[in-house]
Amino acid sequence: MTMRFDATSRDLAERLFRSIGAGTRGSRGITRPSYGNGESFALHGIRLEAIAHGLVAETDRAGNLIMTIDGAPKEPVVLVGSHLDSVPEGGNYDGLAGVIAALLVLIEAKKRGSVAPIAGIGFRGEESAWFGTPYVGSRAALGLLEFPAPRPDGTSLKEAMRAVGADVDAIEKKERLLFDTLDVGEFWELHIEQGPVLVDVEIPVGVVDAIRGNVRAPSARVLGKAGHSGTTPHAGREDAVLRFAQMLTGMDEDRAWVHERGRDVTLTCGIVGTVPGKHAMTTIADEVRFSMDVRSVDPDVLDFMVTSLREWNEYVDWGGFVRTPPAEMSPEMIARAIAAADRLGVPYFKMPSGAGHDAATFAGAGISSGMIFVRNENGSHNPDEMMDMDDFMLGVEVLYEAIQRRGSQ
Amino acid sequence: MTMRFDATSRDLAERLFRSIGAGTRGSRGITRPSYGNGESFALHGIRLEAIAHGLVAETDRAGNLIMTIDGAPKEPVVLVGSHLDSVPEGGNYDGLAGVIAALLVLIEAKKRGSVAPIAGIGFRGEESAWFGTPYVGSRAALGLLEFPAPRPDGTSLKEAMRAVGADVDAIEKKERLLFDTLDVGEFWELHIEQGPVLVDVEIPVGVVDAIRGNVRAPSARVLGKAGHSGTTPHAGREDAVLRFAQMLTGMDEDRAWVHERGRDVTLTCGIVGTVPGKHAMTTIADEVRFSMDVRSVDPDVLDFMVTSLREWNEYVDWGGFVRTPPAEMSPEMIARAIAAADRLGVPYFKMPSGAGHDAATFAGAGISSGMIFVRNENGSHNPDEMMDMDDFMLGVEVLYEAIQRRGSQ
Repeated sequence: MTMRFDATSRDLAERLFRSIGAGTRGSRGITRPSYGNGESFALHGIRLEAIAHGLVAETDRAGNLIMTIDGAPKEPVVLVGSHLDSVPEGGNYDGLAGVIAALLVLIEAKKRGSVAPIAGIGFRGEESAWFGTPYVGSRAALGLLEFPAPRPDGTSLKEAMRAVGADVDAIEKKERLLFDTLDVGEFWELHIEQGPVLVDVEIPVGVVDAIRGNVRAPSARVLGKAGHSGTTPHAGREDAVLRFAQMLTGMDEDRAWVHERGRDVTLTCGIVGTVPGKHAMTTIADEVRFSMDVRSVDPDVLDFMVTSLREWNEYVDWGGFVRTPPAEMSPEMIARAIAAADRLGVPYFKMPSGAGHDAATFAGAGISSGMIFVRNENGSHNPDEMMDMDDFMLGVEVLYEAIQRRGSQ
Repeated sequence: MTMRFDATSRDLAERLFRSIGAGTRGSRGITRPSYGNGESFALHGIRLEAIAHGLVAETDRAGNLIMTIDGAPKEPVVLVGSHLDSVPEGGNYDGLAGVIAALLVLIEAKKRGSVAPIAGIGFRGEESAWFGTPYVGSRAALGLLEFPAPRPDGTSLKEAMRAVGADVDAIEKKERLLFDTLDVGEFWELHIEQGPVLVDVEIPVGVVDAIRGNVRAPSARVLGKAGHSGTTPHAGREDAVLRFAQMLTGMDEDRAWVHERGRDVTLTCGIVGTVPGKHAMTTIADEVRFSMDVRSVDPDVLDFMVTSLREWNEYVDWGGFVRTPPAEMSPEMIARAIAAADRLGVPYFKMPSGAGHDAATFAGAGISSGMIFVRNENGSHNPDEMMDMDDFMLGVEVLYEAIQRRGSQ
């Protein structure tokens, strides 16, 4: 079967990747902070392009970009999209690929007269890097966001959301803001694969069957007692840095033990630091601040790992865990994506997602959800993300076909 | 025998500790940065008091405070003093006690007509916390300072020294600036004990026999490879934080092995951190910056520990080691201090110094050196240093008597 999308669509996507990338590239990588300038730049750029193509594009009361063909349909829509933000010094495709895919799908649907009622979305605030908590835009839209306490450095998610025009009072009241205008029947997200699987198997497109859940401690602290490095005998020391090192080494041994038993698990400390203003080369540290991120598709593994973390409670103030349960994708939508790929002759690979996604928020809220992965080299959350435009267009074709097959199987 | 110093001396010392402390106290502790405002405040305060008491007080070309009774004597002097700076959020007595002791000794010597030709000194820049290298003022004064490269945060020792009027060209040429005006015959330093020994043995005064040397890496880095925390399999990870944790845990095991063999050693990482601007909770860190401080009275132990550190070279860029060899105090001066304490009836304890001191610079330069410790509670390099004024005055008495016994034994 011939493909639907032509060179015009591909050129538009390429131009958007290039110019949004150029406008948000720093010294090394891409930086689009949640509820910050880089994210807003991407949102406004996509919105302008949507309007130029005759679509209706507005922001919802949570600050997310909503695109429709000619205003909101009355019946439940197929919502399609992903997120606009990036991690600090990250890559250009994480999130943005799915928003540009949604734009292409809407333009194509408008041109052809879509069978399915359809809307596109660009979420703000998916990355936890900025405020210590993930999926902010999708959770706010679905009335599921709990505002975290302001961070030690004084940055406040609530103030940042207010600054881009979000209705923080309504969010605090857990109003389902997305449903102001749209009745969401199902949610589709196209995203680059952030691991090496599709590259390894040499297949351009993935159909996701489940999303790893996680347990995170964004603001944990190891505590100790300050002292002079040359005069405090080791026997009496309470060295927060050494305690941190021994804890992380021990935790990683527990992680390896779980892995050896064939169970899915990752454990990462991405942020660690003694405290500027009181740390010194010749002072035993009394405090180390750090983050912890544990993931698994298996809720029991997450529970086991939290129990294991809590064994360090004597020295560690975990500062509250943030949990995102594992999420199953809709079997019916998985079947449609597979049927679409088969019909188009696009090679696909059925796989779980190691990373979390806004689709997990929708699945967790009881809305049928599906995900399409696009092959990507060099991993993600780094400046070297590399997605081939041929692969991207194959993913968009599968996405469009899967949407159009709604109700037809 | 009755003591020499009366209530007037004690009141002066108390007033100076109180007002210099009050002027350099932040939210938690005392902060007198090397070649910065707090250090200069202490220098100017002591200088003013010296002048008010009829002493001659100037700064040398290295920026240190020099005090004499009526200008520099022609014969070799007994130099007595300590340092003016503190660590960030440290205590009020580390360093300052020895400078105030020098002031009291000079005032008393002027009043009584000292037997020994005498001068007092307040060094700048003893603490390595500020520029990653210790004993800057005493090394500059003796023509022994190598300027370190400017730090990653842009702070430059050379510029900071120039800003307080030091002759950085002469320092770079290794001129012995202290000898511009003074011929130093011997150096005495009174200092609070920074460990718990004198408190444990319940003795007010220590006579130091040796000073621990150290090997330091002020700007080391563990390197790794960035990646997404949820999608990068552990098998292929190069996680800089985990590497750091495993390295420090392993290094501490080597430290314990040396200690179990009855050899003197400490190992401390006081500063560690991933890099703001690129670290994130969901990104595997590609870099951890840290400091390392290893101490021993035994040069062979220092060599062994450096060999042990270098075993991690595959992942670690040590960024250059700074070495200070262990230092022996002058046996003749130790004997004089003991004779002085015996004569005065002051209980003393002969002990090594765990911390480094400016006296080690003098001993290393071949100038006879001696140290008197004063009992201090709660350790040092923290806001809770606590020195009793009775103990301090006993230390000053022993110091004065030991100086006056010069050439008489």
